[in-house]
Amino acid sequence: MIKIYFAGSITGGRNDQELYVELINYLKNKGKVLTEHIADPQLKDSGEIGKLSAKEIFDRDVGWIKEADVIFAEVTQVSLGVGYELGLSESLDKKIICLYRPKEGKRLSAMINGNNKFLVKEYQTIDEAKIIIDDFFKDL
Amino acid sequence: MIKIYFAGSITGGRNDQELYVELINYLKNKGKVLTEHIADPQLKDSGEIGKLSAKEIFDRDVGWIKEADVIFAEVTQVSLGVGYELGLSESLDKKIICLYRPKEGKRLSAMINGNNKFLVKEYQTIDEAKIIIDDFFKDL
Repeated sequence: MIKIYFAGSITGGRNDQELYVELINYLKNKGKVLTEHIADPQLKDSGEIGKLSAKEIFDRDVGWIKEADVIFAEVTQVSLGVGYELGLSESLDKKIICLYRPKEGKRLSAMINGNNKFLVKEYQTIDEAKIIIDDFFKDL
Repeated sequence: MIKIYFAGSITGGRNDQELYVELINYLKNKGKVLTEHIADPQLKDSGEIGKLSAKEIFDRDVGWIKEADVIFAEVTQVSLGVGYELGLSESLDKKIICLYRPKEGKRLSAMINGNNKFLVKEYQTIDEAKIIIDDFFKDL
């Protein structure tokens, strides 16, 4: 079974948490999602700290990235952690897809959009995202 | 002369642009700052696109990271690009320092704060930052 690391914003802001739920639920049809907690509505932008130390979170997440076959990042909500995960994943030669919802007055970082190791796909609706996901996993 | 890659937010938001000016001006006493444009008040969160393509920006910045001896990141303003640059820099075994201004209700990503390859230093004022910078470059 394909292992998927879903990357989404936690401390960067939780505005897209409900979308993460829908994406992760759909990704579960394609493989095992290692980071299901990112969809958790109880998880606030204060993060998991309190339950786990920053080092424990870091070690766990880096372990999952190493274990994953695919890195699936929703990059619309700006996040330092997601950016780091993408840089680390690239250095480990992982297969990486970034989903982005363009918005008037906003711009995706050139470090993501200009990087030809990343497959960047734009969308607006969950139905469009599902088609992108289907195509991506069909081609794997 | 030591080459410094200063990493700060562009498309993630330009709230800290004036602080970047002060930090970069001080860093110029310590070495050559490759990314002086990050302090430019004309540079908005729409980024440099228009003048350069995303790929041109990406290629230039990755080139600078490879060339740099030190990566100096201001990580308070959340940025996908800065996160990516930190992940890439770590994979290239660069010396990395992250400056962070703690704020009520905000939390630094565990991917940065829990990573023992990064020297993370907290501060509030530019004078505190200058002391951190002095200490860091003294120890190099």
